[in-house]
Amino acid sequence: MSTVVVGSIALDSVQTPFGESKEALGGTAVFFAAGACHFTDVNVVGVVGTDFPDEHIGFLESRCNLDGLRREEGRTFRWVGHYDENMNVAHTLDTQLNVFELFRPHLPTSYRNARTVFLGNIHPELQLEVLSQTDSPDLIALDTMNFWIERTPEALRQVIGKVDIVLVNEDEARQFAGVYKISEAARFIRELGPHTVVIKRGEYGSAIYGDDTYFALPAFPSERVWDTTGAGDSFAGGFLGYLDGILTVTPAELRRALAFGTVVASFAVENFSVTGLQDLAMPQLEHRYEMLRELTAIEPVSSNERYSEPVRLRA
Amino acid sequence: MSTVVVGSIALDSVQTPFGESKEALGGTAVFFAAGACHFTDVNVVGVVGTDFPDEHIGFLESRCNLDGLRREEGRTFRWVGHYDENMNVAHTLDTQLNVFELFRPHLPTSYRNARTVFLGNIHPELQLEVLSQTDSPDLIALDTMNFWIERTPEALRQVIGKVDIVLVNEDEARQFAGVYKISEAARFIRELGPHTVVIKRGEYGSAIYGDDTYFALPAFPSERVWDTTGAGDSFAGGFLGYLDGILTVTPAELRRALAFGTVVASFAVENFSVTGLQDLAMPQLEHRYEMLRELTAIEPVSSNERYSEPVRLRA
Repeated sequence: MSTVVVGSIALDSVQTPFGESKEALGGTAVFFAAGACHFTDVNVVGVVGTDFPDEHIGFLESRCNLDGLRREEGRTFRWVGHYDENMNVAHTLDTQLNVFELFRPHLPTSYRNARTVFLGNIHPELQLEVLSQTDSPDLIALDTMNFWIERTPEALRQVIGKVDIVLVNEDEARQFAGVYKISEAARFIRELGPHTVVIKRGEYGSAIYGDDTYFALPAFPSERVWDTTGAGDSFAGGFLGYLDGILTVTPAELRRALAFGTVVASFAVENFSVTGLQDLAMPQLEHRYEMLRELTAIEPVSSNERYSEPVRLRA
Repeated sequence: MSTVVVGSIALDSVQTPFGESKEALGGTAVFFAAGACHFTDVNVVGVVGTDFPDEHIGFLESRCNLDGLRREEGRTFRWVGHYDENMNVAHTLDTQLNVFELFRPHLPTSYRNARTVFLGNIHPELQLEVLSQTDSPDLIALDTMNFWIERTPEALRQVIGKVDIVLVNEDEARQFAGVYKISEAARFIRELGPHTVVIKRGEYGSAIYGDDTYFALPAFPSERVWDTTGAGDSFAGGFLGYLDGILTVTPAELRRALAFGTVVASFAVENFSVTGLQDLAMPQLEHRYEMLRELTAIEPVSSNERYSEPVRLRA
């Protein structure tokens, strides 16, 4: 099994109430790969400039295939942003597209029969170009943003018509569908083709809207949330990376995938850049998966089981 | 088992994008009783004016004990509000305290040995007065609001020190504790005495913060949300009503209680006033409880079970 991801590779400078990072490794393809690599082989399609540090190449090489990474004359894509205490909202201070501005995805031959494709948040025409270079993958997922919803709605509709899963946040779903209610927005999207819409709710977790199915999961309660940059992309990495290894995508597997996405994102937000994902391995992911399962589980009404420890009595 | 609730009894006029109600039955004690009555005997402490319609007395009599209800010369408490599409936020247009302004809670002797007490959102001094009239209940819970947090913080701290469970929304918890992070705000509240803090997140559900425990539950996905007035109070009714029948309050029972609170609130918001709670019975509550359990359940990582129905393939 293998997954192709196309998206930005960036140098991020981020300030939050808990510290800052300067020109640190970031971008959709990077966070996605750092999450998905625990589940499957990841093939990156992207571009960096001649200024892209070798150490970052080293980090990426240890996690994914870089045959589809181009190094172009010029500077790497840069993003500068800050967060206040509400870490659900990123405030952009500066975006320098640099070599990313003229990026045209080109898939190496070895990528073309990948089972799974993740179309990161880029121009919908480029997302279509990626698909045209693939050999009928089993699972295609897509992310997008307000910029494309406003400026290229037709191309976006066209590519959404070709994918299985759309991952968006609540406001993006509302804006795209033109309705406030999320279940209706998800239905609108699914009527264009995708069988599943994953709604990302930031600190409130995520939800799956599928054919006659709905599933909701709270976020993992990280005691420390330092930088939410890349949370959505690493979430997508855990989610799709897990699904890439599953032969039949059932509702139960979509739930497991959502839980793994949630867990991967919980590590990502606990530090700046990809630091929280750096020393991650499967046992830690499975441990948090089980914790998440435990902290969302309700027993049946009729069960007679009781936890042995009663809660503390009032003093 | 029996539960005492003290709180407003109101005539609400509400406008939402889905319709409106005029001088309809509302108020904390009413919504609480309509939810809790399915689990336990509810004893209401409150006041209405001479204009309070007999039909509303009939509704309440069918659900709870009204020995503690006073009818005073004057007009009943009135609230006028509206909601836009974001039904998490109520916009108050008018509040007329009327007979509620001089309300002093007086518990009939028959109420004093109630096992459970719910102190609805009233002046903390009055909440203290209620407690002074009770005979050491097993379980005391409290709700409050920004008004008391700002104006009577000392009295509020005092009464919080005497209760087991505090139910508040996120902004109230932040404001009271003076910290942004909800887990820290909950810790701050618990350090004053309560063993459990229930955080109400509106459409994003609710969470329990206890000693070394955390539990989160999404809202029930009601297809139709017409009026969220009373959602928090009916939630409290389901939550505490269920707990009133439980001899040992364990973390697992708190979760079940949270799920029942969630389910009761889901019926409340599907119509105006108490209409959604009017024809409710236990089988419907248990049915939604099981649905909620199903739509939040994740299987273990290692399980080999598979749902039989795969998801629809891309056309």
